[in-house]
Amino acid sequence: MMNLFANLPTDRTVEHFQDIVSQGNVRIERIVSYGQQSPEQGWYDQSQQEWVMVLQGRGIVVFDDGREFDLTAGDSLLVAAGQKHKVSYTDPAHATIWLAVFFD
Amino acid sequence: MMNLFANLPTDRTVEHFQDIVSQGNVRIERIVSYGQQSPEQGWYDQSQQEWVMVLQGRGIVVFDDGREFDLTAGDSLLVAAGQKHKVSYTDPAHATIWLAVFFD
Repeated sequence: MMNLFANLPTDRTVEHFQDIVSQGNVRIERIVSYGQQSPEQGWYDQSQQEWVMVLQGRGIVVFDDGREFDLTAGDSLLVAAGQKHKVSYTDPAHATIWLAVFFD
Repeated sequence: MMNLFANLPTDRTVEHFQDIVSQGNVRIERIVSYGQQSPEQGWYDQSQQEWVMVLQGRGIVVFDDGREFDLTAGDSLLVAAGQKHKVSYTDPAHATIWLAVFFD
């Protein structure tokens, strides 16, 4: 049993990625952001589908086609494989906890 | 964009299952329980892996080997394929929201 709100990493200068499940073509990941935007240059461009949800905090996801999604607790979004995207904002004052599921 | 805390079903006499993503061998589901225990008889016995998390509320998952997991917000659990399990308790006073990811 693992609690996704617990044991938050303490280094606020970087974003933290932790695999919770990684089996076959499926990966479930917790991401903890402290105001980071990522990537700093260019776009995420993934070969897998990504379903992402904000568990706590706030983050803004931008697609390269101009669409923008402002996510707070409970908000989820499907990022299709090959959909270029980036995180343009996370709350600098508090930890933003993301849950991401990657699959084919 | 979908918020998993929003638009909760109003019928409290039954448990509610809603697919959020269903692609290939992966299914992401929201389950809303209002005190239900399930299944009423026997055990869940699934051919897929299930990673489950409580987003809100409280639920107790029991395995047929006697292990018991008392989950509140943020708690997550991997139920291996073929691991017989059931939900022995959910909070009758409030909605319990589960997030389940099924995969091979």
